[in-house]
Amino acid sequence: MSSMLPNVLSSSNDNWVADEIPKSNEVYVTKRGAKLNLEEIGPKPTKKVALICCMDARIDAFSAFGFKEGESHIIRNGGGRASDSIRSLVISQQQLGTNEIIIMHHTDCGFFTFKEDEFRKNLKSKGFSGPDVDLMSFMPMSSSDINENIKQDVNYLKNHPLIKKESKISGWVNDLKDGSVRRVV
Amino acid sequence: MSSMLPNVLSSSNDNWVADEIPKSNEVYVTKRGAKLNLEEIGPKPTKKVALICCMDARIDAFSAFGFKEGESHIIRNGGGRASDSIRSLVISQQQLGTNEIIIMHHTDCGFFTFKEDEFRKNLKSKGFSGPDVDLMSFMPMSSSDINENIKQDVNYLKNHPLIKKESKISGWVNDLKDGSVRRVV
Repeated sequence: MSSMLPNVLSSSNDNWVADEIPKSNEVYVTKRGAKLNLEEIGPKPTKKVALICCMDARIDAFSAFGFKEGESHIIRNGGGRASDSIRSLVISQQQLGTNEIIIMHHTDCGFFTFKEDEFRKNLKSKGFSGPDVDLMSFMPMSSSDINENIKQDVNYLKNHPLIKKESKISGWVNDLKDGSVRRVV
Repeated sequence: MSSMLPNVLSSSNDNWVADEIPKSNEVYVTKRGAKLNLEEIGPKPTKKVALICCMDARIDAFSAFGFKEGESHIIRNGGGRASDSIRSLVISQQQLGTNEIIIMHHTDCGFFTFKEDEFRKNLKSKGFSGPDVDLMSFMPMSSSDINENIKQDVNYLKNHPLIKKESKISGWVNDLKDGSVRRVV
């Protein structure tokens, strides 16, 4: 019996989530069948807006914030940080015609749970090396007050030299207890 | 009559997409009502996977790739570029327990439509300044062959010193004509 365990474990380890995608995607493609060819919409968001939110797995951005295909750029990174979105935003505004930015932070975010110095030490203790270990900003939240972080991110964008001065910028909290949103800025 | 035009235009200019979010979100919150409190799932993706795709407005990541709330980190940036996802991926893997990465590029991407040098010149001609105009990489696709870009991005991750060596990494194309996906790597 025990000789089988390593195989069982290794087989479970070898499961790729990627292998599940074609089947789920087939359902989506079939459902879309009657609708528009998405290429016909073109790459410019019809609502001229870009939304920034966290990569958090619990956030279904289209459903939670009410977007349909074609309407809004969706930029997602760890923490939903503005400073990690500039490259995308500049292309969004200059090449693809957006003029509004919505920043959406959320409760229970993993970016409240670590400090940068400890995280760097932890990486080194696990054997990771290279200049990024010391130089990359991992962007944990700078305040434990979620409103404060949002205000900082909105101000960051308002003062960034590559963001259009006339941009409409708002900052929000998504409460993951019930999925609701609240505007902060 | 003509004296009213500026007001009409300015009022249409003052419409914020942000103002539409609370109403759409209310529908979502009501629908979710009977389901789990999302905070109870916790910030660690239950499928231990992070998906990277483009910010393109036509991609409804949860529906198109078959994810439910809680299952997968979703990282989105202009082009769905791996090199612009490292910070998020390191936190995803080291703090939040993921060990698989799915890179999903798509057809008709805006990042095929510009060259970096021209884009910098264009920014300057519009009056933008600061070191980022010359130093920031805006990451247009390096090849007109979509498969080539995906292979480059997968290799970039496989060789990055801060990405777990044992990561399961796959590369895909999302065809926006019908929403279908095709695995490349």
